[in-house]
Amino acid sequence: MHKVIAIYGIPNDIAAFEQHYREVHIPLTKKMPGIEKFVVNRVLGSPQGKPSQYVIAEMIFKDKETMEKSMASPEGRQSGKDAFQMATGGLTLLTVESQDA
Amino acid sequence: MHKVIAIYGIPNDIAAFEQHYREVHIPLTKKMPGIEKFVVNRVLGSPQGKPSQYVIAEMIFKDKETMEKSMASPEGRQSGKDAFQMATGGLTLLTVESQDA
Repeated sequence: MHKVIAIYGIPNDIAAFEQHYREVHIPLTKKMPGIEKFVVNRVLGSPQGKPSQYVIAEMIFKDKETMEKSMASPEGRQSGKDAFQMATGGLTLLTVESQDA
Repeated sequence: MHKVIAIYGIPNDIAAFEQHYREVHIPLTKKMPGIEKFVVNRVLGSPQGKPSQYVIAEMIFKDKETMEKSMASPEGRQSGKDAFQMATGGLTLLTVESQDA
């Protein structure tokens, strides 16, 4: 499996972020061609102290080619643009290859 | 589902990291009580340029209580200690609540 992982920092306005995420960003992202699963991980804490991350989202694809085509599609570019506009606390996007250990 | 997410920076010695991860860290972590799945996400790239992250690991538990007990167990503490010793490029540990969007 391949994934796009989006690591969001803590937004300036949490309520506005949540509303935009729910009403705009999730529906946009679920339109990405070939997306198999969209997982939202909400950060609860860290044994190292107060975390600076807010959400880690995973967009899951069956293989690398499907992921890359999806990121380059109009829907993928729209989702990416929306993510950066929403991410007032910063955003790191990573592509990964995922395997069970 | 609840997860512990471990974000590793790029290690100083990649070959040494890989060997330790495979031979010591994965077997140690899979002994954590209640762990359902241990997923290793290897960072391939980023649309933002060269990433500073190397691996994002996910330790998956059925609920928060099981995760917290597992982290506090001797096996959990041993896995955490080993992770920080191995992580010459830095390590961020996060606890998250995970849901399909």
